[in-house]
Amino acid sequence: VTVLPATEVEVSGIRFLARYRLAGSEEEARLLVEQILVEETIEFPRAYLPPGNIEATVVGRLEEFRRLPDGRHEALVSYAWEDAGRELPQLLNVLFGNVSLIPGVRLEDIVLPQPLMGSLPGPRFGREGLRRRTEAYGRPLLATALKPLGLTATALADLARDFVRGGIDIVKDDHGLADQPIARFRERVARVAEAVAEENLRQGRHALYCPNVTAPADEVLVRAELAKELGAGGLLLAPALTGFDFLRLLAADERLQLPVLAHPAFMGAFLTHADSGIAHRLLLGKLMRLIGADAVIYPNLGGRFSFRPEDCREIVRGTEEPLADVPPIFPMPGGGMTLERVPGLVAFYGSDVVLLIGGGLFATGDVRDGVERFRQLALSVSSEATGKE
Amino acid sequence: VTVLPATEVEVSGIRFLARYRLAGSEEEARLLVEQILVEETIEFPRAYLPPGNIEATVVGRLEEFRRLPDGRHEALVSYAWEDAGRELPQLLNVLFGNVSLIPGVRLEDIVLPQPLMGSLPGPRFGREGLRRRTEAYGRPLLATALKPLGLTATALADLARDFVRGGIDIVKDDHGLADQPIARFRERVARVAEAVAEENLRQGRHALYCPNVTAPADEVLVRAELAKELGAGGLLLAPALTGFDFLRLLAADERLQLPVLAHPAFMGAFLTHADSGIAHRLLLGKLMRLIGADAVIYPNLGGRFSFRPEDCREIVRGTEEPLADVPPIFPMPGGGMTLERVPGLVAFYGSDVVLLIGGGLFATGDVRDGVERFRQLALSVSSEATGKE
Repeated sequence: VTVLPATEVEVSGIRFLARYRLAGSEEEARLLVEQILVEETIEFPRAYLPPGNIEATVVGRLEEFRRLPDGRHEALVSYAWEDAGRELPQLLNVLFGNVSLIPGVRLEDIVLPQPLMGSLPGPRFGREGLRRRTEAYGRPLLATALKPLGLTATALADLARDFVRGGIDIVKDDHGLADQPIARFRERVARVAEAVAEENLRQGRHALYCPNVTAPADEVLVRAELAKELGAGGLLLAPALTGFDFLRLLAADERLQLPVLAHPAFMGAFLTHADSGIAHRLLLGKLMRLIGADAVIYPNLGGRFSFRPEDCREIVRGTEEPLADVPPIFPMPGGGMTLERVPGLVAFYGSDVVLLIGGGLFATGDVRDGVERFRQLALSVSSEATGKE
Repeated sequence: VTVLPATEVEVSGIRFLARYRLAGSEEEARLLVEQILVEETIEFPRAYLPPGNIEATVVGRLEEFRRLPDGRHEALVSYAWEDAGRELPQLLNVLFGNVSLIPGVRLEDIVLPQPLMGSLPGPRFGREGLRRRTEAYGRPLLATALKPLGLTATALADLARDFVRGGIDIVKDDHGLADQPIARFRERVARVAEAVAEENLRQGRHALYCPNVTAPADEVLVRAELAKELGAGGLLLAPALTGFDFLRLLAADERLQLPVLAHPAFMGAFLTHADSGIAHRLLLGKLMRLIGADAVIYPNLGGRFSFRPEDCREIVRGTEEPLADVPPIFPMPGGGMTLERVPGLVAFYGSDVVLLIGGGLFATGDVRDGVERFRQLALSVSSEATGKE
């Protein structure tokens, strides 16, 4: 009994998969599964559906349900790819839209079929492309950030010069440098890009300067194009601040063709609780990679944040696990790293990593010494680790 | 000892305030505070700052620190408005960017001075404007959603007709209707807008149709303009899926001049844990209001989600508390509401609310009966609640 007309939905039968981890008892977990199947698709009582195939096609389908060793449960759910279409926001909505509001559900992994993979650009450069651009082979790439907020564009450009001279491969803006009255975008990018280009030429280096284009929605592309025009070698974006889809746009842009570093600012709410949010490996690894990041920044274990070794290992896994023809991207651990920790970092990550040290380079009293030590430490350790490349 | 040049930052002295709730012991809370002050601004060791005033101006400042009755602590922090500038993503970054990655910190409230308030449009319509547009005075507004995903545009248009005939004030797309192969945007919006316009004319009603413009970054404004052109009376956006700044853009757009409903999809990670994320009142109330929503949708207490009565009360507070000259907006509780719950909803919210019932309208077997009962229930209860308007 309903006034809704009989409906036959045309779908291809191609489906995508999402794995959810569920808290609570088996009974509670099964209730959560039913919520997922319905909330992420029809948001409508099954009982009131019209005759036809909406339930068989549009509604999520439970493919597997199992108890995990820790007592939690896990559900593998499939959705018609047509539920999401070829749009990232709607894909994220199906995966974790309404369900983000339900405690006890964590999105663990996804498997996307070709129609969805084809709508995500993946990294334009990836590990190999970034190595080629920086001519850095068989060792970790070295990165640092221009900061603190408050320095003039000239002072930042001078810093960038020291960084390039000392052998830094990637000089990025601190993600707190936007276009504030105390940190104007155009002047900063112009001066720093010029300094990096000059110093690259003088020293025979190939450092990339990646300015921060995290900006209002009507400004992200404007700044990215301006950055390119002013000589930037890459871009930095915090996708949770701009919307994830801007990462896709930047990566796919044929006029830009620049590597993109993804920054986790404002993304932490997805990551700070074991029973909710999105798994580290998926969010910071696989998703950032699929959406188009060439390297993903995150707070390393033992820094000022709270990522555990296993979280970092899982992120690395997400950056490099086989994923159709999507190339691996670089993990870029940072967040309070110090020079003393470089040997440990290389031991942990091997050479397929971008090491990001910011303030720690100033610890020796002279930033040029800091950079030099950073380089020596990273290179000596990684040359010992033969067979890694 | 550092190579950084002495730096004097020019700032106005105008500051904005953020109140954070902190988990753990007093000592742990004080460590969290120091992280906040530094992480959200310079991200740089204080000890290595150059001579000058960066520490006094750019770094966050602890204004108050106190123990809460529940044993947690609370810190009131101020920042120079210039740290954020006039850009919403950078404002969110200062308030909760890196700190989102630190467990135990919850952003509770903010106070913005004029330079920041002036950069946020606030609601163009608010409660009063929405009442004027729908000619609905002295009672709750009635809203429902077009769904389920899978219905044809024609079926959705027929549904919309029934809704308007029965007295629904706001007919919105389900936020799961985007531009998928099974739910094309243009055809749906054209047909539904036409149906709503016809039925408004025929019945002397003033219902608004609010299509979902949650879309890829390069499509949000395109769809909003198309929606306007096709006769939409408002817009629906899930800001966490698109980036919050698109809410600002839609609200501020002079060509659009349409009410905007904010939907919480993908926003839940901020809300599901008491010790992290952003307080309900701030995120769903004050922030959505400042950024430009005219009504904010959220899962009501006792529905399919888990908001508690106090969470809902706090959201209402955020929608209406004095806030410079920013008008109050409507709370729009939904999420599994049924007709039986209407009296309780009106008792809880009074008449300054948009009641959102979706699937529940189909429970009587005929959606036209469901709408009629929805209307009678909402009106009879609210006419008893005299003095509310």
